[in-house]
Amino acid sequence: MLNDEQKNESDLGSKDASYVIDKQKMAIVLSALASGNRVDLTEVLEPLHPADIADIIEQLNTTDRARFIRLYDTEFYGDILSEIDEHIREEVISELKPDVLAEAVRDLESDDVVDIVEDLEEEQKETILSALDEGDRVAVQSLLSYPEQSAGRLMQREVVMAPEHWSVGMAIDFLRNDANLPEQFYHIVLVDPRLHPVGNVSLGKLMSSKRSVLLKEIIEDVFQVIPADQDEADVAYAFKQYHLISAPVVDMENRVVGVITIDDAMVVLDEELEEDIMLLAGIGDSSVSDTIIETVRGRLPWLAVNLVTAILASIVIAQFEATIAQFVALAILMPIIASMGGNAATQSLTVAVRAIATKDISSTNIGRVIRREVGVGILTGLIFAVSMGLIGVFWFGTAMLGVVIAISMLINLVVANLAGTTVPVILEKLGIDPALASGAFVTTVTDVVGFFAFLSIAGILLL
Amino acid sequence: MLNDEQKNESDLGSKDASYVIDKQKMAIVLSALASGNRVDLTEVLEPLHPADIADIIEQLNTTDRARFIRLYDTEFYGDILSEIDEHIREEVISELKPDVLAEAVRDLESDDVVDIVEDLEEEQKETILSALDEGDRVAVQSLLSYPEQSAGRLMQREVVMAPEHWSVGMAIDFLRNDANLPEQFYHIVLVDPRLHPVGNVSLGKLMSSKRSVLLKEIIEDVFQVIPADQDEADVAYAFKQYHLISAPVVDMENRVVGVITIDDAMVVLDEELEEDIMLLAGIGDSSVSDTIIETVRGRLPWLAVNLVTAILASIVIAQFEATIAQFVALAILMPIIASMGGNAATQSLTVAVRAIATKDISSTNIGRVIRREVGVGILTGLIFAVSMGLIGVFWFGTAMLGVVIAISMLINLVVANLAGTTVPVILEKLGIDPALASGAFVTTVTDVVGFFAFLSIAGILLL
Repeated sequence: MLNDEQKNESDLGSKDASYVIDKQKMAIVLSALASGNRVDLTEVLEPLHPADIADIIEQLNTTDRARFIRLYDTEFYGDILSEIDEHIREEVISELKPDVLAEAVRDLESDDVVDIVEDLEEEQKETILSALDEGDRVAVQSLLSYPEQSAGRLMQREVVMAPEHWSVGMAIDFLRNDANLPEQFYHIVLVDPRLHPVGNVSLGKLMSSKRSVLLKEIIEDVFQVIPADQDEADVAYAFKQYHLISAPVVDMENRVVGVITIDDAMVVLDEELEEDIMLLAGIGDSSVSDTIIETVRGRLPWLAVNLVTAILASIVIAQFEATIAQFVALAILMPIIASMGGNAATQSLTVAVRAIATKDISSTNIGRVIRREVGVGILTGLIFAVSMGLIGVFWFGTAMLGVVIAISMLINLVVANLAGTTVPVILEKLGIDPALASGAFVTTVTDVVGFFAFLSIAGILLL
Repeated sequence: MLNDEQKNESDLGSKDASYVIDKQKMAIVLSALASGNRVDLTEVLEPLHPADIADIIEQLNTTDRARFIRLYDTEFYGDILSEIDEHIREEVISELKPDVLAEAVRDLESDDVVDIVEDLEEEQKETILSALDEGDRVAVQSLLSYPEQSAGRLMQREVVMAPEHWSVGMAIDFLRNDANLPEQFYHIVLVDPRLHPVGNVSLGKLMSSKRSVLLKEIIEDVFQVIPADQDEADVAYAFKQYHLISAPVVDMENRVVGVITIDDAMVVLDEELEEDIMLLAGIGDSSVSDTIIETVRGRLPWLAVNLVTAILASIVIAQFEATIAQFVALAILMPIIASMGGNAATQSLTVAVRAIATKDISSTNIGRVIRREVGVGILTGLIFAVSMGLIGVFWFGTAMLGVVIAISMLINLVVANLAGTTVPVILEKLGIDPALASGAFVTTVTDVVGFFAFLSIAGILLL
């Protein structure tokens, strides 16, 4: 049992103002796990939101996690499972006893079950599907028939619909008598006799309108229909762009087959942005709870690509071996050229990748954006050409060395900005994710051009 | 006037399946602007969502933008203004005629007006505030009294509240008779007599419950109250973490003063992630529509910091001038060491920065995360030590050179991963945004350590 002071801590605010997991709470969890005290564990977790319990499970080490699952099994409910990071969900599922797992997934809505099973191995997938009732299993399997990362996978099948000719009164009576309403819904979707969506009526508007008013007179101004095969990233974009709260999903025949709500779209938006951040940094799918091997697997490819581009740059340098042997100052200054080019390239590349993702670059403004980047390259190039040129002159006492640095700095920054913008645009046109592949190309270009410019100009002017 | 074929294009789907602005539509806009054809312009824009019209305005060049605003002034409504990127909003506002501007802002809800005026110069701010009715102006000024980027700035003041002892029937009658309901609301907030929030009732639940049921019997399981001074990033986190749709905002005395809805939280989440992406790439606040000067201003600070760190690295190299003069192969290989270290550091830095932002690193797992990163450094270090060592031996025919590269690659990757993880954590503890400042520190550490290790080991083993 917890004493009173500990209990007071376990109020609704499961995390402090900034939502970081409470240290004291974590200490209670750890000591309950160590001593196998089921009562304390249940008591401290009871007031917490499943998302916070999932966070606690994620932050445990593997041994404690296994203990947690054994000790908490009677309480382990579906929402915790659906909140757990997919990287450790498989581990958790394999630790859960089959009957606990079956009980847990039976609580969940079909879209949450889909979210869980889609990343699982075939065997675990079967275990979960067979735990479901016939009706739920069919629902889940039908959602799984849509392509991965499509609107169809994201939607829930339970839609509150009404014929377009209904009045407010008819809709209210219908809602009041329908025992099977979804947990959360914000709109009634108006449909024509062929189940084509024609508008959304918000519940607030429904409540505040007279019973005799026709539903079609109070539909929302903004109404967006989502095709079931639309990419989930585009779905998230539509919700953000048009401030949607819920939107009906339609099949190829424009019939309503489900509905997507903004909370799911927000999760996708978050995942997409996180993914872009990771890809830009050269990291595959990853999580803090990954093991060393998993982490290395996610990072090795980019490091390997980088090794190849670095070797290419070295081969360029090797062509100027004689020049460097005569002027060791060049070797000392080389990293500055490479580093500045790399940074400028990263800047313009990141802007271009994000502008593509947010659909802010189009054929209308692409020319202007490229001209601007070249302008930025020239301006920053001139600024750093002058400053670094002067530093070079004073450091090494050779005026001509300053000129060499200045010219190559200018060339390098212009090329960096040009490549940083055009490479992502070209990759996008070729159907390659620019966040994934741009970095490697751009780094190669700036390194090779940077070293070549610096060393060849040095060869001409200094020898 | 548009011909039929052009008209067919202007249907509800303002953008194609992937929501990119339609080329043809843009062509009509541009030709209408060139010929000053107000009718065509109005006709092509009429079916579009204000967010899409705002996108079109953003993609125009400055001359066309001014023309657009002159030609479209009678139609220019508030929602377009609130959708326009804040970077060009000032430009648009100064182009709008005062009466058009006044008319436009009068349409808007108080939180949208706040969103517009908070970034404006004092003079423009006054123009807009004076255009508002007395009541709206007071509402906007009261929201502006909350700190920037706080929940208070984000909330709307119009809250639908009900006393905690009310029944479903009483609430329904109240909603039906209240003419002043907000445009969008999803919950009724139950309050005690002192206006302290005690629970949320969803409209769906309200509609499907019997009139005699008490509201407090059907409150939502998840109920999160947001303090008005909470940072908006934490608000967005709470909405994502707890799948909130709306949450009441309270003042210091725990009285309800407003409500935040998920669509606003989603915009904040998006902005926060975009900001982190830009900061990680060393870019200040920026947009594709920025001018060259604005862009340079956003990028120069990081390039300048980078120049300093690059010079530090060069100073380290300069200490080994004699060694390099004897072994030019070292100059050829140096960039490989720097580049691999920089990339490994970026990887672990990005993971750490994001884990801090998503509150996935805590005192419970920080030790484990650092140990893992060191492990990753050792493992990747060994892999690239062996491969690059072998390449070095074959390339230059000196076995000892391979050993030098191998050892320094290992040291460099371990240091890179260690610094990449610990620097953001330390900066966070010091209250400095890790996304902003980590890059500079970590680059300096990896460059300096990398070059020093490589060249000093070379000095010992090769000479």
